[in-house]
Amino acid sequence: MATALSAYSIRLRARIRNRPGVLGGLATAIGGAGGSLMAIEMVATDGATVTRDLVVFCPSEAHAGDVEAAARQVEGIEVLEVEDRTFALHRGGKVSIEPRRVLKDRDDLAMAYTPGVARVCTAIATDPALVHRYTMKANTVAVVTDGTAVLGLGDIGPDAALPVMEGKAVLFKAFGGVDAVPVCLRVDSADELVDTVRRLEPMFGGINLEDIAAPRCFEVEARLTEALSIPVFHDDQHGTAVVALAALRNALRIVDKRMEDLRIVLSGAGAAGVAIAKILLSAGAHDIVAVDRKGAVHKERDGLDESKRWLAEEANQADRRGSLQEVLAGSDVFIGVSAPGLLGREDLETMADGAIVFALANPVPEVLPEEAEGVVAVMATGRSDYPNQINNVLCFPGIFRGALDVGATRITENMKLAAADAIAAAVPPDQVSPALVVPSVFHPHVASTVATRVGEAAIADGVIRSVVG
Amino acid sequence: MATALSAYSIRLRARIRNRPGVLGGLATAIGGAGGSLMAIEMVATDGATVTRDLVVFCPSEAHAGDVEAAARQVEGIEVLEVEDRTFALHRGGKVSIEPRRVLKDRDDLAMAYTPGVARVCTAIATDPALVHRYTMKANTVAVVTDGTAVLGLGDIGPDAALPVMEGKAVLFKAFGGVDAVPVCLRVDSADELVDTVRRLEPMFGGINLEDIAAPRCFEVEARLTEALSIPVFHDDQHGTAVVALAALRNALRIVDKRMEDLRIVLSGAGAAGVAIAKILLSAGAHDIVAVDRKGAVHKERDGLDESKRWLAEEANQADRRGSLQEVLAGSDVFIGVSAPGLLGREDLETMADGAIVFALANPVPEVLPEEAEGVVAVMATGRSDYPNQINNVLCFPGIFRGALDVGATRITENMKLAAADAIAAAVPPDQVSPALVVPSVFHPHVASTVATRVGEAAIADGVIRSVVG
Repeated sequence: MATALSAYSIRLRARIRNRPGVLGGLATAIGGAGGSLMAIEMVATDGATVTRDLVVFCPSEAHAGDVEAAARQVEGIEVLEVEDRTFALHRGGKVSIEPRRVLKDRDDLAMAYTPGVARVCTAIATDPALVHRYTMKANTVAVVTDGTAVLGLGDIGPDAALPVMEGKAVLFKAFGGVDAVPVCLRVDSADELVDTVRRLEPMFGGINLEDIAAPRCFEVEARLTEALSIPVFHDDQHGTAVVALAALRNALRIVDKRMEDLRIVLSGAGAAGVAIAKILLSAGAHDIVAVDRKGAVHKERDGLDESKRWLAEEANQADRRGSLQEVLAGSDVFIGVSAPGLLGREDLETMADGAIVFALANPVPEVLPEEAEGVVAVMATGRSDYPNQINNVLCFPGIFRGALDVGATRITENMKLAAADAIAAAVPPDQVSPALVVPSVFHPHVASTVATRVGEAAIADGVIRSVVG
Repeated sequence: MATALSAYSIRLRARIRNRPGVLGGLATAIGGAGGSLMAIEMVATDGATVTRDLVVFCPSEAHAGDVEAAARQVEGIEVLEVEDRTFALHRGGKVSIEPRRVLKDRDDLAMAYTPGVARVCTAIATDPALVHRYTMKANTVAVVTDGTAVLGLGDIGPDAALPVMEGKAVLFKAFGGVDAVPVCLRVDSADELVDTVRRLEPMFGGINLEDIAAPRCFEVEARLTEALSIPVFHDDQHGTAVVALAALRNALRIVDKRMEDLRIVLSGAGAAGVAIAKILLSAGAHDIVAVDRKGAVHKERDGLDESKRWLAEEANQADRRGSLQEVLAGSDVFIGVSAPGLLGREDLETMADGAIVFALANPVPEVLPEEAEGVVAVMATGRSDYPNQINNVLCFPGIFRGALDVGATRITENMKLAAADAIAAAVPPDQVSPALVVPSVFHPHVASTVATRVGEAAIADGVIRSVVG
């Protein structure tokens, strides 16, 4: 049976007859319908009955309905209320805008607002760089989407994308102390998207692009990086690439191989795939064959778009050709950012000794860890219910924290490499193991060490301004 | 000597020789340079000296320099540090974006972000109205400017305008519980401004336009009101108009006159002037002559733009003509939203008995209350250092609170009138006096009573949607 998850949890309020066995009967009914009873709280009692809230995790929305129906059948139970805990958590939104200063009286008001604020405005009008010191720009990033490639849901539009961008804003603050504003844009083209973000630049110290479909995302990132004097970072590409590189660095310690010697197969030639190939080349790899639905991406293939041509010419230096299965045979590393269930155990068995497999398709990976057991040396996925979760949250809060702290004007390749090094180093060398090549997303210091290293790299690359917050 | 204000205050840290008279000498020097010593705190002592922080209000930036210089001359004083308290308050910005939910563990993360968030996204994609319930849109307003008419500073651009918009966001939260996001746009035309705000609509439950120059502001407000299904409100126009009407309602109780009988002179035919004329007409007035630099705005004048033509035809129903002084003679009410020092005591003496004067030019009004004393029955200004401050903060937090609470799709004339009534009623009838025609900006209940009345008016006007936060 599938795992019961908080994402499909309900809070069920029931009046329960106060007699031995009734609560037990309810618990049994819940379990029988596929629910996991995670918590019970007493709400009230009148002697004859006890009203309780039960938190029940379920494997799916359908199971949640089954659990409710089963509970209603139990003798001695009156179901008073059923709440979907996920929707309750999202109700009214997940972020708020709060004053950083309390205005106690007229004197405070006269400094924060008129007439005092006019002095600050005048100072910025005279020296525009001061906007980085005396406004929210000092610590604020836009989480920008057009809603064209949201999670695995596709082009659901900017309104329906908003809960994801708010979630990202929550993560930015919780892990990096970065103020992040969701910016969901109703636009129809890369031109409109780029123009709009340019017009919004005054408020923001950085732009995190999110869930924008390829190839639009490449153009948007390139044009904004060119046009703006603040860092632009497409997290779906570079966040994934940075964390994958971090995991690979630690995995190589386990199998005792060098980046330069690896034969790497990359399944998925979209936005994330291209970014992973780029960062692996920067890190010293040079035999990386990308594979899409038509097989290996190589120089002689017809109809390659710009990014696939790049993959063929720059990444596939050994000019490998064939199907996914064919190029996988004898390779050292498989990284998948593609589709569920592409590989089986028999495919993994053809890889070189000490094989490393990162199956990052979400929620169902290219191959499940169960199938890889005993065949590969290191296995990672994008999921939280297996070891080695390759999760962007290890990267983006720290990378923007570091960029803002030093007043970076862009995100360079060295800053990404530094972030990967910092994430890898967050697992102490003596603790690196096949089940621990990346730190937990709740590791307390990842973001700050990433920030420090990223800031140092920005300074070394000379991409900083003189005025910071 | 001009008043010492918090807006020009400094914090002066000094090591003070621990001997009788030294601190007194410092205080004397500060006062001699024009500063007002507002607070003294001890920071440290080593026996021979005491280090103290002194908060000194000054009449201007220049005086702050004088105070520092004078302090440095005092025997036994070593000035360690001088901080401009206004700039210190603005440092790093005045707003932050905060999570409304704490994410304690993986289970919380799985509800707020993937995979749980996908269920909320899908629900909104299926029923778009749910964006008002499950996202920040439920309680979030954009404070939108292009920086073309910021305070009295003019066209200083969107970057330099940001401190004002942040201040407004602080006021929105503090007084109305509304989450407000500063949106400073680098745009060159009404078209670009309108397009950009339309693209941003997904995140916002309302649009507060701010500090946009006339006549662009008229076009922008009209086009956005037409294009969007959320409330649009240009605060510089309607906020001022609502609070002025509230003040006028209470002033009329004092002089025992009726709105219908008033002869009203309006100095200033810009954005605020037009809005004031409109709301006064809605409230029952019909003899309102607007005056600009060329005198009364009347039908026969050449070169009237669209809004002045409206003022001539719809507001100046008595077809009054002549200079400001000429039309003022015999009138009951003067409302100025124009320029400092246009009127003298001798002008006010020509008004009808029981004259009401609202001189709202900022920071220096059309006529100072000192000059009006004994000549007019009720006097109001835009300043906090005189009685009867006509301040928009009495209006905008409550009007958006009310609109969001009932899911209003626009701001109707009745909603503005209801807001004015609620503000007027916040001064209990038995307390209405020449020095109290509007409540204090720190009145604890204004915003909530405004919100209630505005919500009722929206419901009565039928401009609400079914789904709210």
